Amino acid sequence: MDTLLSTICSPADLKRLSDADMVKLAAEMREALCRLAATRTAHFASNMGVVELTLALHTTFDFSRDRLVWDIGHQVYPHKMVTGRYDRFQTMRAKGGLMGYPNPAESDYDLFMTGHAGMSVGTALGLKCGDDLLRPTENRRVVAVIGDGAFPSGPVFEAMNNAGGLKKNLIVILNDNKMSICPRVGGLAETLDRLRMAQFYTGLKLEVQKLLNRVPVLGDPVERFVTQVKDALKAGLLGGMFFEDIGFRYVGPVDGHNIRQLQKYLAMVRQVEGPVLLHVVTEKGHGFAPAVKDPTTFHAPAPFRRENGSIVIARRTSGRPPYTQVVRDAVLAEMQNNPKVLAITAAMCQGNMLEPIREQFPDRFFDVGICESHAVGFAAGLAKAGLRPVVDIYSTFLQRSYDQLFQEVSLQNLPVTLLLDRAGIVGPDGPTHHGVFDLTYLRPLPNFVVMAPGDASDVAPMLHWALQHGGPVAIRYAKTAAETVDRPAAGQNGEVKLGKAEVLHEGADGTLIACGALLPACVAAATRLAQQGLDFGVINARFVKPLDTETILRAVKQSPLVVTVEEGVLMGGFGSAVLEAAADAGLDASHLHRLGVPDRYLEHGPRNELLADLGLDAAGIANQCLQWLGRHVEPAASERNSVSSVTVKA
Amino acid sequence: MDTLLSTICSPADLKRLSDADMVKLAAEMREALCRLAATRTAHFASNMGVVELTLALHTTFDFSRDRLVWDIGHQVYPHKMVTGRYDRFQTMRAKGGLMGYPNPAESDYDLFMTGHAGMSVGTALGLKCGDDLLRPTENRRVVAVIGDGAFPSGPVFEAMNNAGGLKKNLIVILNDNKMSICPRVGGLAETLDRLRMAQFYTGLKLEVQKLLNRVPVLGDPVERFVTQVKDALKAGLLGGMFFEDIGFRYVGPVDGHNIRQLQKYLAMVRQVEGPVLLHVVTEKGHGFAPAVKDPTTFHAPAPFRRENGSIVIARRTSGRPPYTQVVRDAVLAEMQNNPKVLAITAAMCQGNMLEPIREQFPDRFFDVGICESHAVGFAAGLAKAGLRPVVDIYSTFLQRSYDQLFQEVSLQNLPVTLLLDRAGIVGPDGPTHHGVFDLTYLRPLPNFVVMAPGDASDVAPMLHWALQHGGPVAIRYAKTAAETVDRPAAGQNGEVKLGKAEVLHEGADGTLIACGALLPACVAAATRLAQQGLDFGVINARFVKPLDTETILRAVKQSPLVVTVEEGVLMGGFGSAVLEAAADAGLDASHLHRLGVPDRYLEHGPRNELLADLGLDAAGIANQCLQWLGRHVEPAASERNSVSSVTVKA
Repeated sequence: MDTLLSTICSPADLKRLSDADMVKLAAEMREALCRLAATRTAHFASNMGVVELTLALHTTFDFSRDRLVWDIGHQVYPHKMVTGRYDRFQTMRAKGGLMGYPNPAESDYDLFMTGHAGMSVGTALGLKCGDDLLRPTENRRVVAVIGDGAFPSGPVFEAMNNAGGLKKNLIVILNDNKMSICPRVGGLAETLDRLRMAQFYTGLKLEVQKLLNRVPVLGDPVERFVTQVKDALKAGLLGGMFFEDIGFRYVGPVDGHNIRQLQKYLAMVRQVEGPVLLHVVTEKGHGFAPAVKDPTTFHAPAPFRRENGSIVIARRTSGRPPYTQVVRDAVLAEMQNNPKVLAITAAMCQGNMLEPIREQFPDRFFDVGICESHAVGFAAGLAKAGLRPVVDIYSTFLQRSYDQLFQEVSLQNLPVTLLLDRAGIVGPDGPTHHGVFDLTYLRPLPNFVVMAPGDASDVAPMLHWALQHGGPVAIRYAKTAAETVDRPAAGQNGEVKLGKAEVLHEGADGTLIACGALLPACVAAATRLAQQGLDFGVINARFVKPLDTETILRAVKQSPLVVTVEEGVLMGGFGSAVLEAAADAGLDASHLHRLGVPDRYLEHGPRNELLADLGLDAAGIANQCLQWLGRHVEPAASERNSVSSVTVKA
Repeated sequence: MDTLLSTICSPADLKRLSDADMVKLAAEMREALCRLAATRTAHFASNMGVVELTLALHTTFDFSRDRLVWDIGHQVYPHKMVTGRYDRFQTMRAKGGLMGYPNPAESDYDLFMTGHAGMSVGTALGLKCGDDLLRPTENRRVVAVIGDGAFPSGPVFEAMNNAGGLKKNLIVILNDNKMSICPRVGGLAETLDRLRMAQFYTGLKLEVQKLLNRVPVLGDPVERFVTQVKDALKAGLLGGMFFEDIGFRYVGPVDGHNIRQLQKYLAMVRQVEGPVLLHVVTEKGHGFAPAVKDPTTFHAPAPFRRENGSIVIARRTSGRPPYTQVVRDAVLAEMQNNPKVLAITAAMCQGNMLEPIREQFPDRFFDVGICESHAVGFAAGLAKAGLRPVVDIYSTFLQRSYDQLFQEVSLQNLPVTLLLDRAGIVGPDGPTHHGVFDLTYLRPLPNFVVMAPGDASDVAPMLHWALQHGGPVAIRYAKTAAETVDRPAAGQNGEVKLGKAEVLHEGADGTLIACGALLPACVAAATRLAQQGLDFGVINARFVKPLDTETILRAVKQSPLVVTVEEGVLMGGFGSAVLEAAADAGLDASHLHRLGVPDRYLEHGPRNELLADLGLDAAGIANQCLQWLGRHVEPAASERNSVSSVTVKA
């Protein structure tokens, strides 16, 4: 079933295949993608769409010296198959297996680890300028492959404009499949649609261009008018004026599933002097009808198998809904009660489970595309107009908005509410997607309130509180099922008040202060410690800023051991906030310890395993407390395995 | 001399002026700008260029209900003159006076405080969507004014594309003066140049459009071809296809110094359904020949006066060069010795004094425009190719690159060197420009080395060290003259070694740990304390990450009082790093205090005054130490004045 694919050890092996074998190979590659998708969640439809493009690229260029940069790297699976990694292909996204994104540590064919969109053109331009300076005689070709979903991302335009000015031989492949994860949005999308529908394809266009070039151009006004008409005709007939206007030659569109045609046009753009954009039209999910029909579901589907001609997708087994859903339900409830509340997503409608909001409130739902900087600036404008925008976004992608959080939100003190999904360890997506920095970059911004629900029941009151508050608020939560902890007395304790923590239990031997979704692990750790005869208190911090210094410093004063627990980096995080508060109060905090994410990048793998490796599960927390107390410690996961760091070759 | 201008209390007063009076008023406004420029450094040439545009905007729209958002707000002076602030106009940029940027606390006509470029279109779109939802019958007009220098900034494109998709009635005024501070760059710039040079102006274009609209359009292929030719002709003849392709109607170019013509076209675009861009051509420095001739020098010149027909610009009085220049000289020296070293600026060639590098190494100098995100991604590509890029950038503007620092630099562990100019209190530019967050967002990123020179003599060795190091390095320094402190022994002490601090002096009574440019203030504070009979040591931290825990924790163990001093926010900054180190070592740090910038935005004013207000000058540091030691304290500036915070009305 993989008679050809199993013989491909490097791109050089592709070059000896006949056209017919290439078509056969493409089919085998699609089978391999289907086999992987049957075993675990992985990016699927986008990879089905780039099989032919990948083969054409590797047979037209020599990327052992030429440069290939993949934009959002989840379309890199076929590339991994043909660059010496087919033998490990079925380990994709498993812990210790291949990464679901390009990884320079895996192969020299992977130049940049890319999980955030829109940086391929800029890094490719840097590579081109660098190669031209260091290796001027080699004329290495540099290719960036970018999807139409990522294309409107601001840094792409910055890089295209820079390349247009520098007039470097840069090749940008626009992989146009009409989709982000959800359908793409924005004004340019309509232009791309018009280009796709052009009646005459590239061959005819070149004839038109030749014809036009025969019109003589002279100096007097009449002749200048002729030139203008000529340019005008070129513009309208050839299309792509958007690209031409920023200094790129536009070629296309070409059929992204015809290997021969792709090779022909890739060979052509390889010879072009100056920046060139090749517009390739592909179909997301190509070769697998259900994915073509519903590319959103098949973007990164749960494991599925074919059965009696239909597709059976595995269902989530856990009974508890994830935080993503609990938060979405809370937003929906607020929108039903308050017409000023709006929801904004940066192309993550599906990931953030916002479809019901999009259906019920189409006028109050905005998908701005993969444009996180704009999402936050846009929200600031809405807030200034008097509305209550909610930006629902992955923690890691909010990094794209840092300066807008500063200038447009914090400095103007506008009531924008940020919902930071997947804050902490995200699991199989790995280091580009872990959301572990948010507390460190949000906390120092004046006017910001930063919260983290300790469990499911914190979510709705926190959101409600945030939407009454007169300034910016961030609420961060993890990519996990939203558990509920037992509370000693339901009454007042549960109420969300600015800067107030919730004391679940006071303890004579020590106190665990949990920030966010690790609260249940802390409660379980306290139970384990109780089994050892130790009385540990547990505090649900709720607020990272402003910190409940009264409650927390009381614990620091009274407890022989205080441990902060957070799902984020330790440098400058929640635990540091507690240290700062203790120092400001002149307290001895030498018995205060911080648990969290260390100063290195973490590999991909299931969230619970990665947390255990870091000692951030109940066993790890309890054992660490025992160690600090000088007690005997049972061996636990956190002692047995150490989580592997990511090594990236520069 | 201001007979008309002194009568303008609000934009309503403009509407009763005749055309001739408007021209006279424009001349008075220019005189007022010249008077201001004679007293202190202020933004000059850009404001001279927008006098007529400002008047035309305020007479065509009613911005007490319509919305006006200025992109980089330093072009806002004429707007301030006619919106009730002329009486205070000569206080511009003085401490306690008008802010040199829009300030919602000053006037309801200022909607967003904008010192970073490129956010006007996004916030304006948010305002438009908000107004349409909250006040659907009012049809408020929303106008964003953006310069051609800021236009290529990524978030502008993100917002334009979003607006094009939403088809909102958004008006974008492109104020095209062919300049950033230095001449603009990029592919789109050439397209704008072509548009400016179009032979037939807008009136004729409308005739052409009418004519084309008369061509019949039918259904068969031949007719479709005719349609395409028609569209093609429109594109070429009318220009602006770049804007049309992202869903904006393009109108222009129009003469930005002809008030009548501006009013006519503003009235026209006010009626357009859907997003529209009006291309206005202005001249930077208009009305003042020396500024027209040299708009870069006259962007924000030192105070100047007219004398015998020539211009006398005040010279810098201090003998010591600023850090900016010391760093530039160090970069130049490295570039002379190492052909792999490159310099990158994001449109701040002048501000970072890089002109000699641009002259000597045109092939190794890159101005990418106001595109900080791209600047860092581009540098990562260059580093990956094997070069040693140096990104010379203001600390506050690097905030735009946070996600690129994460993904493209830190995660890939690439040897990009960041030179963070104006890190700390910047002075008269105020809250959008203070560079006080850098340590908090850089420190948590794995692989990063973060340094701060304590004085001028640290600079060259630090840069040299950084350019030998195999990973990312940030060096941050202040907007001040680079002083030199006395060192006890010149020898080894001065050598820069990874993670090693420099002990200038050990003290029995306390230790000051200085991070960066406040080292001389700490040395002077120790001298003051010595006069009180107290023996204080001084440590030049040099490294924020990795921290010299050996040296610093020895001080924490041995000193009765330890004080960290930094020109940055306290939350998560250098002092927090020291607290973390002490906690990790299980040390009692209750005698450790942190001095730095508190959790609020600081007004504009001279850096030394703002520092004194914060107690970050020698007197303030010494007095604070005396207080902590329970000693008598002399009244000092830091007690007398408290620095005013910025209040922004939401």
